[in-house]
Amino acid sequence: MEDLKIIVNPPKSDWKSILARPQGGQLPDVSLVFNGITNSGDAALKRYTLKWDKVALQKLWATEQELAEAKVPAELEKAIKKAKENIEKFHLACIEKNVKITTSDGVDCERLSVGIQNVGLYIPGGSAPLFSTVLMLGIPAKIAGCKEIILATPPNKRGEVNPAILYTANLLGIKKVLKSGGAQAIAAMAVGTETVPKVDKLFGPGNSYVMAAKQRAFLEGVAIDMPAGPSEVMVIADDTSVPEFVAADLLAQAEHGPDSQVILVTTSRRLAEKVEVALAKLLKELPRREIIEQALACSRIIYVPELKEAIEMSNIYAPEHLILAIENPRAILSELTTAGSVFLGNYSAESLGDYASGPNHTLPTNGAARAWSGLSVKDFSRTFTVQEVSEKGLLNLGETVEVMANAEGLQAHALSVTLRMESLKSKA
Amino acid sequence: MEDLKIIVNPPKSDWKSILARPQGGQLPDVSLVFNGITNSGDAALKRYTLKWDKVALQKLWATEQELAEAKVPAELEKAIKKAKENIEKFHLACIEKNVKITTSDGVDCERLSVGIQNVGLYIPGGSAPLFSTVLMLGIPAKIAGCKEIILATPPNKRGEVNPAILYTANLLGIKKVLKSGGAQAIAAMAVGTETVPKVDKLFGPGNSYVMAAKQRAFLEGVAIDMPAGPSEVMVIADDTSVPEFVAADLLAQAEHGPDSQVILVTTSRRLAEKVEVALAKLLKELPRREIIEQALACSRIIYVPELKEAIEMSNIYAPEHLILAIENPRAILSELTTAGSVFLGNYSAESLGDYASGPNHTLPTNGAARAWSGLSVKDFSRTFTVQEVSEKGLLNLGETVEVMANAEGLQAHALSVTLRMESLKSKA
Repeated sequence: MEDLKIIVNPPKSDWKSILARPQGGQLPDVSLVFNGITNSGDAALKRYTLKWDKVALQKLWATEQELAEAKVPAELEKAIKKAKENIEKFHLACIEKNVKITTSDGVDCERLSVGIQNVGLYIPGGSAPLFSTVLMLGIPAKIAGCKEIILATPPNKRGEVNPAILYTANLLGIKKVLKSGGAQAIAAMAVGTETVPKVDKLFGPGNSYVMAAKQRAFLEGVAIDMPAGPSEVMVIADDTSVPEFVAADLLAQAEHGPDSQVILVTTSRRLAEKVEVALAKLLKELPRREIIEQALACSRIIYVPELKEAIEMSNIYAPEHLILAIENPRAILSELTTAGSVFLGNYSAESLGDYASGPNHTLPTNGAARAWSGLSVKDFSRTFTVQEVSEKGLLNLGETVEVMANAEGLQAHALSVTLRMESLKSKA
Repeated sequence: MEDLKIIVNPPKSDWKSILARPQGGQLPDVSLVFNGITNSGDAALKRYTLKWDKVALQKLWATEQELAEAKVPAELEKAIKKAKENIEKFHLACIEKNVKITTSDGVDCERLSVGIQNVGLYIPGGSAPLFSTVLMLGIPAKIAGCKEIILATPPNKRGEVNPAILYTANLLGIKKVLKSGGAQAIAAMAVGTETVPKVDKLFGPGNSYVMAAKQRAFLEGVAIDMPAGPSEVMVIADDTSVPEFVAADLLAQAEHGPDSQVILVTTSRRLAEKVEVALAKLLKELPRREIIEQALACSRIIYVPELKEAIEMSNIYAPEHLILAIENPRAILSELTTAGSVFLGNYSAESLGDYASGPNHTLPTNGAARAWSGLSVKDFSRTFTVQEVSEKGLLNLGETVEVMANAEGLQAHALSVTLRMESLKSKA
């Protein structure tokens, strides 16, 4: 805990280094895995699963029975259903509507939306069964109308998928659960095998092997949701914040992994000191203390005199999560340019958004929030434009296009309009 | 022209090979250019411009005077202004609206939109001055409210940017025109130099060096619009199509480059034959005949008996442009899953969409239309979610989140909610 000392009113020249993220190492090389899957398909997938997950799978796919019989405790079932309801409500509200507009007389233009046909959802295994991520990827995929939804997740040593993951998948109507994790699962979905359909887009978090495999898939023409990186939170707090709440939010973020980063920027020195005290006290009770301590070593508490400096720091840092535990958080919303998801006031704990309030928890991290957005239905859909030009519309726009096409040296473009105009004139 | 023979009712087993795209070669290695720009900034940019564009630039940026004084012939000025008007109308109609919804009592969730702060627009030089692409990238960037818009385009041997490009940039209010092209321009915008701001997202077409540089930028965390590839069109036609119009549309696409691909799928053998004749006749008059002949060598005319087979072929191929020159094109719109942009009927020449009807002409090609959409304002914006949970909302959702967080083994997540609930209960 000694590392999380308060940085007092740093000069602007220091901001860049203060707000720097810990550098991740180079991603592993996954080309052997891609070659293996490309050459041997399912057999390679089984071989890698034996090698890394230590299980000889008979079947790569969860059976209908496994899906139908997956059970979770009654209180968890209730919680998952409540979360599903809120997430569905919010994601349905964010659907892109079709557009139809006449831009010039006789020129009708539309934008229509259609679900991406084949998507792959990756759910990590490891220490925690991330059934919440099944909700956050599966719900928008279903709303978008994706035709084929593959969910891949590593099996345990008995060849089983965590029941909470299976239960949630089944609840959403996802019927294809691939018992495979790591780079091999991503490669199988990117390339396609005898039983794994090649997908058009890959979604979901993962370790460095999964990240490397998603990058490789992208270079081969498969879309990916966003670049991945360690989770992070920035809290902006003032004298009206509750130190224990702020400390708990920082700890919640830090428990994700040793490479998570948490930053508190506050206009109150008193609060900064109280948060330090609360952090030390709350940390003692937590089972993931060791992970949290490593994460806190790369974290910061920063005091700045003015709220506008805190906002500027947030815009520079581009935090995945931004908690505004300040008196009037709505007043600064219009000044935020790069936050992933924003939580207002003392009661909007970030955990609520991680699980159940409605918005997606798959958010751009590691600075990607400068250009990327959190996931929503539109990431599982594509839009296409449609145009219908009548005879009148052609006469209206034809000359414009002839002039522009000739000026760009594209005479066949001009010709395709000229021929049509001439045929209309000869008809008249 | 001998290569464009009619393929008659191919068996399904042949579809994949018939619809295969010509394989592009490996992309060039641009790491030396990235290293040069990273280490020497503007000096490297000038050095590369001297080396490849054969001009020793005094100033890397177009001056205010150059922008203000750029002129085009009066009829082109009128055409560009007409196109701008339509493109603005359509793109404004497609803006994402903010969303606000209460998912549970006391849980208010919103989605807000903000322009990506720093964007780089690349406009190729070479044989044609693509001022139309300035419109197609610049208009949505301006509507989105991007703060810093850099337009990069290679200068000629006298150090000048094409006047139509400068004129169009100035018309849109784009004030920063970088006289630089190729991988070095992309690297400068991705990395940042003394005078070139590092951008958050890169847009625009280009040759294989530009494509390689955009891929490299993506791996370093800069967003890109979409993967690039040669332009392509599929025309679905029946007995009601006009052979000369179909032929002209195929030629227009083919003149983009020797690697362009054009495919006609028709339910009319009579039409297929007439299109062949019209192609040979029209081709003779065209200045880019040599390019077109190369493109046609990789192209196809396919006869299928049923319209539903043509639709299926389109969905498999995922064409950038799809022209439906058939009797009732609207009837099949809902069956299209992977088209980039669709043109209905005999008078909706694809050239109209390339220049002036309104929708964007920057479209996913090379099969990317399976997952990507054509550009629109949303590609220049990002959305972020906001949530405000009241005391009531917390009490409403708190237990749900405690149960889920504990089931995922994330006790600090649960704690951040528990602490808040306890403080409310002790207040009551």
